[in-house]
Amino acid sequence: MITLTTDFGLKDPYVAEMKGAILSINPKAQIIDVTHGVDKFNIQMGAFMLASAAPYFPHGTVHVAVVDPEVGTKRRALLIQTARSFFVGPDNGILALAAQKQSIQHVYELTNRKLMLPDVASTFHGRDVFAPAAAHLDSGVKPQEFGPEVIDFVAPDFATVQRSQGSVIGEVLHVDAFGNVITNIDGKTQLAKKISLQLPRSSIVVQTAQTYGQAKKGEPILLVGSHGFLEVAVNQGSAAEKLSLKVGDRIAVKPV
Amino acid sequence: MITLTTDFGLKDPYVAEMKGAILSINPKAQIIDVTHGVDKFNIQMGAFMLASAAPYFPHGTVHVAVVDPEVGTKRRALLIQTARSFFVGPDNGILALAAQKQSIQHVYELTNRKLMLPDVASTFHGRDVFAPAAAHLDSGVKPQEFGPEVIDFVAPDFATVQRSQGSVIGEVLHVDAFGNVITNIDGKTQLAKKISLQLPRSSIVVQTAQTYGQAKKGEPILLVGSHGFLEVAVNQGSAAEKLSLKVGDRIAVKPV
Amino acid sequence: MITLTTDFGLKDPYVAEMKGAILSINPKAQIIDVTHGVDKFNIQMGAFMLASAAPYFPHGTVHVAVVDPEVGTKRRALLIQTARSFFVGPDNGILALAAQKQSIQHVYELTNRKLMLPDVASTFHGRDVFAPAAAHLDSGVKPQEFGPEVIDFVAPDFATVQRSQGSVIGEVLHVDAFGNVITNIDGKTQLAKKISLQLPRSSIVVQTAQTYGQAKKGEPILLVGSHGFLEVAVNQGSAAEKLSLKVGDRIAVKPV
Repeated sequence: MITLTTDFGLKDPYVAEMKGAILSINPKAQIIDVTHGVDKFNIQMGAFMLASAAPYFPHGTVHVAVVDPEVGTKRRALLIQTARSFFVGPDNGILALAAQKQSIQHVYELTNRKLMLPDVASTFHGRDVFAPAAAHLDSGVKPQEFGPEVIDFVAPDFATVQRSQGSVIGEVLHVDAFGNVITNIDGKTQLAKKISLQLPRSSIVVQTAQTYGQAKKGEPILLVGSHGFLEVAVNQGSAAEKLSLKVGDRIAVKPV
Repeated sequence: MITLTTDFGLKDPYVAEMKGAILSINPKAQIIDVTHGVDKFNIQMGAFMLASAAPYFPHGTVHVAVVDPEVGTKRRALLIQTARSFFVGPDNGILALAAQKQSIQHVYELTNRKLMLPDVASTFHGRDVFAPAAAHLDSGVKPQEFGPEVIDFVAPDFATVQRSQGSVIGEVLHVDAFGNVITNIDGKTQLAKKISLQLPRSSIVVQTAQTYGQAKKGEPILLVGSHGFLEVAVNQGSAAEKLSLKVGDRIAVKPV
Repeated sequence: MITLTTDFGLKDPYVAEMKGAILSINPKAQIIDVTHGVDKFNIQMGAFMLASAAPYFPHGTVHVAVVDPEVGTKRRALLIQTARSFFVGPDNGILALAAQKQSIQHVYELTNRKLMLPDVASTFHGRDVFAPAAAHLDSGVKPQEFGPEVIDFVAPDFATVQRSQGSVIGEVLHVDAFGNVITNIDGKTQLAKKISLQLPRSSIVVQTAQTYGQAKKGEPILLVGSHGFLEVAVNQGSAAEKLSLKVGDRIAVKPV
């Protein structure tokens, strides 16, 4: 099983070219789209989406993620083997968030030209390098055949949470299509019934809730979202709009 | 075979999480997207789309539909068994339009926790309740194992047509991406060559046609659309824009 | 294996209806979306996308493409057999660009009603004519059973390149979602280090490059894109916006 996460969109034929490359090598491959709607060149957003979806896939799944502004430069191409799955993509942090959750075992640099398409376009490693690697992995080629093991790789600097004077200070990791604001603060954090939120453009006190439906229509609440992170939401509305929040914004959470 | 109809969009990883949940239970499942572009919380639109697509799928298909503004409240989770397929989703009318077309045999409430994911997030029953139910059904678990049979369920109140003084009065069920205006009036209705349409913001007389191509460019026509409903269309243009029509608008159809 | 290229979008259930029609005939079919985001009625764009993706799919793949403004009129429905694959769609040029690349062997008109759905809606041949044809082909029905062989078909008139006074004169074939401007000029053209571009609304001199990353942020460059055509790009920006270029615009390329 192979999943794909990219910023290619669904209008252009790029995703189909990746799938064609996979299926030409491994016609039985089952390919699932995580998303192709990552904002262009937004590595953080791609990393978040992959990290959200990967835990739900079976053991042995090969996850390919391509948000790759430096394609064709000297940035490395990686294969990360974890206790549970494989991750394939550029060495720019897009894989690390998902891979770290699964206990990383080995990291290889993809250098073996025999496991790429015969002509590698310098602008499209998704199709010519990463898709073939995934197809070969999925059909049983051993990870160490793809290239040398490496010990250093780019780790994302987002998703670090600080604690200060009773507050937990995190940041907005993602705003979903409903306008829910997902933070990088772990949902296992003990929550009071009322929470003070210090936001870049306002401070408010919100109730904590179990579900969107518990809040009045239009009222902001704090809950543990389905991804396991703290989430600011508005029942049947957009929290991002109501509170003017966007990705990267600082959020301080403090019990009242 | 399992189909998915949701309002989750394709930007977020939610659809992929549902697919991962299905494939972790049933790795051989064949999953087909009906659409994930239902307008947020628009149960009528989701019901229409599912009812349009379901008849084309093979017997035994499991159709999952999740437009679920009340997720996490006490609204029930349903499994509807028809003469032809299974329908899985919240009890808010989204399944009923498609299921009614196929002769409903049994309706069960999904209560068996063993057939859900171990941790059910109160905000994402699509992944934690409905996707696993579909995966188990598709791999042969009997419908009655999911929970008790129920006899009442929410039936949609859209899609009722009235007749008065020679007119058939219906409403706009859907506007497609071409701007074609699909009504809830059955295409088997006998049609005169010229038809008077009374619309909320205008009245016009249109020709009936077999195909879009029969009309002049820009001219409104009435035809039986591919879904079997009466449809107002404009050849190579948007009828919804030209006639200021939107979902829920009343349309009275009368021969001239 | 069957691919789909349409202008139906992903909001409406039309694509799912095509897939249902295929899977009802041939439940084992593997269906891959090339794109459903072709601009409505834009045959050139659909032809370009199909021609981009088709070379990456395995031998024997059945490619279905439906951008079909004349559906229901007397335009013919075609099946083109090449040395490598099958192409199914309306006779309006959408198939020809991809098929010509693969050495056309036979062209048949789809007339055999037994290989269509029982009721053919005059507005939706994608589902009722082309999808069933693909499903039957993929399950082994011989091409000649679909209808009579024909020798004439509509060939696209885009994609002709002229040479004059040291310039190569082509046109914009496509603008991708990154704003890269793809021309119809073959990437095998010998390129000088500096190139003068005469565009409809400006003339500039650009460097040629191997990859996007070689250029400064915001600087226009000329390179051979991953499709094998000359492409005007801007590193981490939109060349189409910066240079006011759109599909169909004339581009003259001349070494400095």
